[in-house]
Amino acid sequence: MLERLKQQVCRANKELARRGLVMSTWGNVSAIDRATGRVAIKPSGVAVADLRLRDIAILDLDGVVLEGNLKPSTDTPSHLEIYKAWPQIGSVVHTHSLYGTMFAQAMQPIPCLGTTHADYFRGDIPVTRELSSKELAGDYERNTGLLIVRCFRGLNPLEMPGVLVARHAPFAWGKSLDEAVDNAEMLELMARLAHGTYQLDPDIDPAPTGLVNKHYLRKHGVGAYYGQKPVRRRN
Amino acid sequence: MLERLKQQVCRANKELARRGLVMSTWGNVSAIDRATGRVAIKPSGVAVADLRLRDIAILDLDGVVLEGNLKPSTDTPSHLEIYKAWPQIGSVVHTHSLYGTMFAQAMQPIPCLGTTHADYFRGDIPVTRELSSKELAGDYERNTGLLIVRCFRGLNPLEMPGVLVARHAPFAWGKSLDEAVDNAEMLELMARLAHGTYQLDPDIDPAPTGLVNKHYLRKHGVGAYYGQKPVRRRN
Amino acid sequence: MLERLKQQVCRANKELARRGLVMSTWGNVSAIDRATGRVAIKPSGVAVADLRLRDIAILDLDGVVLEGNLKPSTDTPSHLEIYKAWPQIGSVVHTHSLYGTMFAQAMQPIPCLGTTHADYFRGDIPVTRELSSKELAGDYERNTGLLIVRCFRGLNPLEMPGVLVARHAPFAWGKSLDEAVDNAEMLELMARLAHGTYQLDPDIDPAPTGLVNKHYLRKHGVGAYYGQKPVRRRN
Amino acid sequence: MLERLKQQVCRANKELARRGLVMSTWGNVSAIDRATGRVAIKPSGVAVADLRLRDIAILDLDGVVLEGNLKPSTDTPSHLEIYKAWPQIGSVVHTHSLYGTMFAQAMQPIPCLGTTHADYFRGDIPVTRELSSKELAGDYERNTGLLIVRCFRGLNPLEMPGVLVARHAPFAWGKSLDEAVDNAEMLELMARLAHGTYQLDPDIDPAPTGLVNKHYLRKHGVGAYYGQKPVRRRN
Repeated sequence: MLERLKQQVCRANKELARRGLVMSTWGNVSAIDRATGRVAIKPSGVAVADLRLRDIAILDLDGVVLEGNLKPSTDTPSHLEIYKAWPQIGSVVHTHSLYGTMFAQAMQPIPCLGTTHADYFRGDIPVTRELSSKELAGDYERNTGLLIVRCFRGLNPLEMPGVLVARHAPFAWGKSLDEAVDNAEMLELMARLAHGTYQLDPDIDPAPTGLVNKHYLRKHGVGAYYGQKPVRRRN
Repeated sequence: MLERLKQQVCRANKELARRGLVMSTWGNVSAIDRATGRVAIKPSGVAVADLRLRDIAILDLDGVVLEGNLKPSTDTPSHLEIYKAWPQIGSVVHTHSLYGTMFAQAMQPIPCLGTTHADYFRGDIPVTRELSSKELAGDYERNTGLLIVRCFRGLNPLEMPGVLVARHAPFAWGKSLDEAVDNAEMLELMARLAHGTYQLDPDIDPAPTGLVNKHYLRKHGVGAYYGQKPVRRRN
Repeated sequence: MLERLKQQVCRANKELARRGLVMSTWGNVSAIDRATGRVAIKPSGVAVADLRLRDIAILDLDGVVLEGNLKPSTDTPSHLEIYKAWPQIGSVVHTHSLYGTMFAQAMQPIPCLGTTHADYFRGDIPVTRELSSKELAGDYERNTGLLIVRCFRGLNPLEMPGVLVARHAPFAWGKSLDEAVDNAEMLELMARLAHGTYQLDPDIDPAPTGLVNKHYLRKHGVGAYYGQKPVRRRN
Repeated sequence: MLERLKQQVCRANKELARRGLVMSTWGNVSAIDRATGRVAIKPSGVAVADLRLRDIAILDLDGVVLEGNLKPSTDTPSHLEIYKAWPQIGSVVHTHSLYGTMFAQAMQPIPCLGTTHADYFRGDIPVTRELSSKELAGDYERNTGLLIVRCFRGLNPLEMPGVLVARHAPFAWGKSLDEAVDNAEMLELMARLAHGTYQLDPDIDPAPTGLVNKHYLRKHGVGAYYGQKPVRRRN
């Protein structure tokens, strides 16, 4: 069972690179098996092209490495805090995708400017505050995870499946690996659209709430009528 | 005969993706057989890579599904209103192409800034007004189609074969599927050119009417002398 | 001999598309055989992918078509005026390449902002004035050629192998087809670099004349020492 | 042994093109064998696609050509000054990569705006002053190398493995060829990220020193914990 999780995590890391969301050794995908509490994650500093199944690390939620011949991603503690806080989440993705990172560096949320955005994210994609010197000097990667979780007080992480860490880069997530990878890609596209829209009008207001809710809910709400039901899957 | 229409619509949807105009499950192409009043359109929420001939839906102009094993695109009512209003139109394309969507989000027309634009669109590509709360709460997709049609009062849809829906994205059309797909691509290119031109000069005026007419008419007017006549076709 | 010219012109038109400088049916390449005064040029409105050797038109400098089963490019009279004015030129290229067209639409020269530019163009790449209503209503394409030639009074077309036609798009040229195609590509790259540099500093001054001359002349001057001499060619 | 160096330099020049960092005949990679003081470098004005092993020139640090059938890069004297000044450097790369060149043309450093940058460069990537008329008229390429070295007084070239030459383009370097090529690519990515971030906020401050040091040192410092140790290599 964990073998299957490792396979899926290995494939998802390669998929992230294929979609142009990670470069060099940046970025990582993890997934959790909620029945056993085991997390599979990419090893640290390994280029995706070189990634092999046996390199994927398996840890428990306390960060104890149970399997894998390589050190897990340095960002592992950030992933673990997210899994601990949000039991509805099955996968976390971290990228340095270009436009998402520009907004993170500018410490600006990705504004919801139209229906394309609202189809995936119910409102502006938030940006965390900066870490304090103390948080930076302490358990840095764990504090990054805690920062994300705190930033989401009052927000539903399934309706807002992504965030920008200030001065750093995007994180995204989902119920499944497929969803998390899709959300990381959509976050990047929304950042690119918003970046270009701001160049046309730096003072543009976010889209009206009515339009945002209409589009978000026609796809994700109780009465959703977008797409096929059940969604058709092919092998 | 409708089998051929389904084939063409299936191929045109894939062509749209090949040209980089749609991502994920966004965007859709339809075509109408005017003799029978039947419309063929992409199913909802299906990625283009997965699209099969038998997935294409056939409807009448009242939206009654006659063929196809999947739910038609949620945007179908928008397409139908356009077909009903403009009998000279044979195909409608909806995309979320990047630069077109930026202008739609900024609620700005795509200005006609030079001869490249005037070769395809006789003037600025218009942007609709925003939908009212009532239109949004009602038959949303049908109201979007009506909004487009109302926005074109006084305009010839064959001389201006595209529009931006405010806060949403572009629609384009043409006499044939080939024309409609080409126009969707040209709209995106004009948006990209105008976006970059505005960065050089945010106050640039549209191109003079004389130049616009000269270029539009040397290609599309009665005395057109651009291209071959009849246009050579190869198989 | 003209057969060889047709082959080269056919290949150069396809090369232009391969380098991403033309889209759809836009853009055209011509070359002249100075011994016979014959010009070979792309036919009008034909997509480059469809272009065959026998489609290439052969004309004399008065525009009389001598060979070819298709109508030559509508821009042919512009090419002919350039060949008539500048006997040192062997090939002319017209594109609607993206960044070059943005500067043409903004009616701004492409400023010489650094050594990359100075390696190919000795100073700012000029933009013509707009055509008058009379020039537009008259022999439009011929007047475009005359406009370019007039714009180059006092300039050496071999040291400045490109121009922007206001509201329209770039033309480039060279002693040979290879040179002309390279210059069209370099014009586009310089436009892209200048466009991005202006976003960092809209008030940046052109590079100092001393630096421009140093780089231009180390590559093209009498005492040029860049590259191999004679330039090595491989088949 | 020098045969191996030539092979590596030939391959690295092609790798640079493969990563989109050089176009046409621009850009060059060199490496030094510190035991013998021999430098291998690309020949001048040769397109990378045409580059053969026997074209790579071998010189000593005084610029005397010892091997190779072609003239070495005109930029060779710049490379040599860098090797002479910094014995810890094993390879130098010169590109005209797009975003790096934009910052060089604007004569602005590439600001360190986030952790992505700090993972590779410990602070802003500096830009040199412009060369004086005298330096330009004299031994231009050697003076460019001296300018770079002088610009790095007080800086550790291994912690800041790249620079912009004002009005010209980037140079990067590293202990090995692999490192130098990676650093040239990272410089371009940081330039692209900073360029886009400035469009969101032209007045953004550089990232706080604490964050920069944290990220730089977790990867490169004595107590570095990013990546695998020793870094796994595969053939």
